[in-house]
Amino acid sequence: MFDIAILGFGTVGSGVMEVIEKNSDMISQNAAQEVRVKYIVDVRDFTGSPYEDLIIRDFAIVENDPDVKVVIETIGGVGVALEFSLRSLRAGKSVVTSNKELVATHGYELTRLAREKGVNYLFEASVGGGIPIIRPITQCLAANKIKEIYGILNGTTNYILTEMVKNGATFDQALGQAQANGYAEANPDADIKGHDVCRKICILSALCFGHHVYPNLVPTEGIESVTLTDIAYAGSIGYKIKLLGRAISREDGKIAAYVAPHLVREENLISGVEGVMNGIVVRGNAIGDVMFYGAGAGKLPTASAVVADIIDAAKHVSARKWLSWEDGGPEMIYDADLLENAWYVRTSATPEQVKGIFGDVSFAGGCKAEETVFTTAVINKKQADVLLSKIPVLSLFRMVD
Amino acid sequence: MFDIAILGFGTVGSGVMEVIEKNSDMISQNAAQEVRVKYIVDVRDFTGSPYEDLIIRDFAIVENDPDVKVVIETIGGVGVALEFSLRSLRAGKSVVTSNKELVATHGYELTRLAREKGVNYLFEASVGGGIPIIRPITQCLAANKIKEIYGILNGTTNYILTEMVKNGATFDQALGQAQANGYAEANPDADIKGHDVCRKICILSALCFGHHVYPNLVPTEGIESVTLTDIAYAGSIGYKIKLLGRAISREDGKIAAYVAPHLVREENLISGVEGVMNGIVVRGNAIGDVMFYGAGAGKLPTASAVVADIIDAAKHVSARKWLSWEDGGPEMIYDADLLENAWYVRTSATPEQVKGIFGDVSFAGGCKAEETVFTTAVINKKQADVLLSKIPVLSLFRMVD
Repeated sequence: MFDIAILGFGTVGSGVMEVIEKNSDMISQNAAQEVRVKYIVDVRDFTGSPYEDLIIRDFAIVENDPDVKVVIETIGGVGVALEFSLRSLRAGKSVVTSNKELVATHGYELTRLAREKGVNYLFEASVGGGIPIIRPITQCLAANKIKEIYGILNGTTNYILTEMVKNGATFDQALGQAQANGYAEANPDADIKGHDVCRKICILSALCFGHHVYPNLVPTEGIESVTLTDIAYAGSIGYKIKLLGRAISREDGKIAAYVAPHLVREENLISGVEGVMNGIVVRGNAIGDVMFYGAGAGKLPTASAVVADIIDAAKHVSARKWLSWEDGGPEMIYDADLLENAWYVRTSATPEQVKGIFGDVSFAGGCKAEETVFTTAVINKKQADVLLSKIPVLSLFRMVD
Repeated sequence: MFDIAILGFGTVGSGVMEVIEKNSDMISQNAAQEVRVKYIVDVRDFTGSPYEDLIIRDFAIVENDPDVKVVIETIGGVGVALEFSLRSLRAGKSVVTSNKELVATHGYELTRLAREKGVNYLFEASVGGGIPIIRPITQCLAANKIKEIYGILNGTTNYILTEMVKNGATFDQALGQAQANGYAEANPDADIKGHDVCRKICILSALCFGHHVYPNLVPTEGIESVTLTDIAYAGSIGYKIKLLGRAISREDGKIAAYVAPHLVREENLISGVEGVMNGIVVRGNAIGDVMFYGAGAGKLPTASAVVADIIDAAKHVSARKWLSWEDGGPEMIYDADLLENAWYVRTSATPEQVKGIFGDVSFAGGCKAEETVFTTAVINKKQADVLLSKIPVLSLFRMVD
């Protein structure tokens, strides 16, 4: 018998309960013992719930119960979630979480504390929902030096962009639909402004490159600047617009990380990741590019990743599955504005003016009379900015092949 | 210091040496000790090779050296590879292999022996080359009941089909190019007749569903029947032709597995897996569909999967990573001819004749005068055969969305 406690009985917490009940035979077999939820900690009232008897309000009961080996933190945020995670680890309990904000901002201290206490701090569900990504990076790709990781890390914004491309919905219409379908929060800022992607690329950077990358050091742009006009032009030259989180390891040990909408070439499988799905590409020096694809959010997918971590914690009570990295800071960061790529530009300047400034560029055909769309040579943002300062820029996006 | 021996110094074996040297710092860190190749066993002459001093001909030296903890079998086939694997396990050494034929035919006895001897038998590289798939199935998806697994499991045939689609090459031309590029063997039968895919779907079935599925029980069709004509018609209705291995777990515990070319709808990401790449979809009851994509073959990608297994073996000398399953036989197999799907049919019958027999079907437009192309309702193979016996069938393929 392996006792666990769930902190927070919202979407993910109740999904964990559901997956444990639904697949109990298989989970017991894989964990080599029965996994039992002994407590659910939540301050809300769940009178009439089938789990009413398990629900308690006082976290100290969990903290002081030596039977509880693993604490599942699905509270979210960095307030009480951080406090309870620290107290659980200090009490010698492993912690499993789906809380990307907490891992992105406090992952260094939490993994270090877990290591000190000889327990596990696991967070497969914090990136890519149910998609296996954390464990493949740390185990399967252990023989590779990872050079780059990028992908579609937020289902809400990808749903909005997909609706715009496929059904010609405006940004506001698509956002409204996402909210109506439960894919977007009433306050959608964390998604549409790119903060959620930023947290996830920080976690992936730390795992892949060995240093914590703090979210406030990552330039982050959301999808509010994406228009139907640009989507149509992008399509006409064989690209889709996708919000990407991206991190690159430099030869000098520095890390370049940023979040921004990109034009992605249609031959790139990432451009085929539609709706609420996520897709993540990892580039290793032996394996080349591998991609992981699946539901990036949702109750059962996310819960299934949490439960896989619980099984791992149950199997490794003595053998630790340490995921950890060094601390980071501004001195570890390479300016993303120095990364080179081709750029998509929409301007009210004429093709002749563009040619005079940029030289030999590719123009998109069929433009409206009053605007010009072109793609630049491979240059960095600072170089682009110098040239672009000479024309009125309506839209500007990075391009990836 | 963790000593290993490599059996067979061909493409994969020498790739393992290369990856270990290239990424030695990272591998030592991940394995928590230095990994050293103590012997390379090969009967060929490697005079002048930088590894000349490591090369021996007598496997018994490895077998009797207690320093050697892990044996890397990259010989291939089921002759001496089986003998040396069994002797290594009996000598208490873990075995890591990339040999799909051996795992597909003798995996049950080899994993059972490993378990008895308290060592590991690991084979991440046997399916999907460098793509992490074995470990994600056994660990990350441990909270899921897996219902189905399918995908593009052979790079050679996918390269040939891609060349036919993209460049209008005939099957023979594309095969010649594949041979010229080193993607296909001089005798390409194992690839183009589907046997390689068959072995891989057998391994995946065993892992996902818990019973060995022997290759001779899996109906296997290659790509020789795929014509440029069918590729063009498929494209006109929004599909690509791909060789898929597929296995389904039935509610009654039986397993349906087969290998055949399919029409795959262009919206399905699998249809975007081109050239020598592989893509594998796993369908779990909590996670939904996840896909794993990457180089399915090649020296360094395959070697990187082997080295990940070596690292795992080094970290788990005492804690075992048992991958194992029950034996299987004909009584576990569900007849793939009873699986239902829509079918693509090309016939010399007229649309009127087809309507008279099949009722309301979808016809492809723009057919040549002397032929008719249509897609059926969702029916099984036996039902289809009854109807198809009444018309001259030029081509017949399963369809997946």
